[in-house]
This record gives sequence, C-alpha cells and structure tokens, in this order.
Amino acid sequence: MQLLEDRIRRDGKVAPGNVLRVDGFINHQMDMELLDKLAAEFQRLFADAGVDKVLTIEASGIAIAALVAQRFRVPLVFAKKSKTSNIPDTVYSCPVKSYTHGNVNTVMVSREFLHAGERVLLIDDFLAHGEALAGLINVVDQAGGTVVGAGILIEKAFQDGGKNIRAQGYRVESLARVQSMDADTGSVEFAAD
Amino acid sequence: MQLLEDRIRRDGKVAPGNVLRVDGFINHQMDMELLDKLAAEFQRLFADAGVDKVLTIEASGIAIAALVAQRFRVPLVFAKKSKTSNIPDTVYSCPVKSYTHGNVNTVMVSREFLHAGERVLLIDDFLAHGEALAGLINVVDQAGGTVVGAGILIEKAFQDGGKNIRAQGYRVESLARVQSMDADTGSVEFAAD
Repeated sequence: MQLLEDRIRRDGKVAPGNVLRVDGFINHQMDMELLDKLAAEFQRLFADAGVDKVLTIEASGIAIAALVAQRFRVPLVFAKKSKTSNIPDTVYSCPVKSYTHGNVNTVMVSREFLHAGERVLLIDDFLAHGEALAGLINVVDQAGGTVVGAGILIEKAFQDGGKNIRAQGYRVESLARVQSMDADTGSVEFAAD
Repeated sequence: MQLLEDRIRRDGKVAPGNVLRVDGFINHQMDMELLDKLAAEFQRLFADAGVDKVLTIEASGIAIAALVAQRFRVPLVFAKKSKTSNIPDTVYSCPVKSYTHGNVNTVMVSREFLHAGERVLLIDDFLAHGEALAGLINVVDQAGGTVVGAGILIEKAFQDGGKNIRAQGYRVESLARVQSMDADTGSVEFAAD
C-alpha cells in the first residue's frame, strides 16, 4: 500500500540488525489518521471473509486491531502474553518464541472468548519470523474456530514468517512488505507486491 | 454514565477481594460498539480542553484510548511497562506499584513523544489506587506538558486513587464509579456522584 510505504520511507528509522523503527507513527506513538486509513484497507481486503471477531496480541497491535474491529462491527479480543509457565485451564494457550527479546512467552486467550465455528481475522503490526501469528492461529484452532486471514501492517519479507504461514494455506495480507533495509543509508526497499 | 453502569450490572462479575471482572466487554474481549459510545462521551466531556495528545498505558487501555484519540484527531501514545530497572535515558520513566500483581513496574514514554507545552488527555480502563494514573501524570510533568484531565471507564470509588488525584487539582472523569461490590450476591452499587 503506497500510503504506508511512503510513510515508512519518510519516518521509519533503520537500525543495525534489520531493525525498522516505526514508533513515531505505529507502535509507541500512533498516528490515528494513518491507522484509520490502514484499517479501511483491511476492511476492503477482508470484506467478503465473513469476519465474526478480530484477534490480536498485546500490546502494539491493539490500536489498529480496534479500528478494524470497529469497522467490521465485531468484538475485538487481544491475546495476553505471559512469562509464567503456570497456565490456568480456563485459557487456550501456546508458547511463542520472541526473537526480539530472546525468550519464550505464552500467549493466552480465555476459553470464554473464542468459540467453535467463529470466523476470526488476525491483526498485528509486524510479521517477521511469524511466531506470534502462528501462536494466534494455534489458539483459534484449539477453540475450533476458523482463521479467515491475517492482516499485517509491516511484513519483513526477507524473513520466513509470512512465507511459512502462507504455505500452510492461510491468507496473509501485509500492507507493506519490506524486502531489504540498509542501516548505513537508512534506505528501505519494498517487495514489488 | 447509565449505559456503562447497566452493562456492568448485567455482564460484570464480582469476585472475592473487590475484584470486578469486565473481561467480556472491556479488557480482554472488547465490545467495540460500547467502547465507541464511551469514547464519544469522553469527547463530549473534554471537548473544550484543547487536547493535543492522548496518553494511556499498556495494554487494556489502548483500545478505548485509540477510539478517543481518533475522535479528537490527535496522536495516541501508550506508555510501556517494564519490570527492568535498567531504564534508558531516552525515556521519561516513573516507578509504579501494582496492587494487583504485588510488584513494581516502571512506566516509560520515549522523550520523542511527549513535549513541553502539550496538552495531554490521559485515558485508562480502571482507576483504583491510582498508581498507574499518577505515573502517567509524572511523565507528562517531566516533559513539561499539561495534563488536561483523565478519562476513566471504571473507578473503584471506595479506593483512594480518584480522591487523591482530584485533591491534587486534576480533573478526573469516570464513566462508572463503583461504590461497593458483593461477591456473594454479585451485586454492584454505583456512587450517585
């Protein structure tokens, strides 16, 4: 999506280690006007998907997920992340490795809020190795729901997450797909589509 | 606000220890239609406050804060919570005691996203002892900004947070003020205000 690519080129900051900082407009301070346009694009892309519920994971995906859920007039559920291994049996849970933080979290959703037969749209701000997204798919599967797709703001297309999850048959729509970054020049190249 | 009080009476769950569970519609699964009406009420209440920015704290306040920021057409910033005592000097930070979890977190906001002269509206889902809200006020003060007020969904009016923060001269608008709860009967009484 040109709008998001242009904004990343203008305001994103490339740091060593393939880090793309977008915390001025997406994941610490949020430009709500931009996010609302991105939410509208997800609404357009998944208009025919029969979305019953939006699911995201805390914390930085919650704002965009809220705007998407608002547009579809469906509830939003956010999965909680916990470092504890003491998981109550009232939740669906899945361990998720964080490459950013080098640890393993457990994602948890109360069994009250995911049900068999529900059509669930996953929304998150970033997709890189795909661990968080795979965890969300796993908890929807446990509940007997259907993942109708995943809407991602920024995909690091040079990492394997998106490829692996698409290979499993899931629809993944990423509004910006970063092909490469250069911390020396600050340049960001996007995949052709 | 009658709408929220009615919903809490209907769908809130009272647990021992003055715990009010609203995770079916406010802070795990979110009823976006309800939240949008609550956001509209905050917009009405703070219409003349000259809001430049909305500030909340991760994670469960982000959705309502996003809808409020969207209505005011201003950026949303969410403060991050960290257990680490190793705080970078690029952030404003404040230690915050959690009564729920019995520990101390540090709330952090990048110095890039709070500035002198900004008029900041604080939004959160719960106000009880007021530690989180006091932490947010503290970081806005450090930045030289002005807190124009705090919009809270549910205040536990039998605890001291709201009283203390109002006594410091801040405007706190809570859409539902719980006066007492009874875990045996499940009843919730609201302050007349």
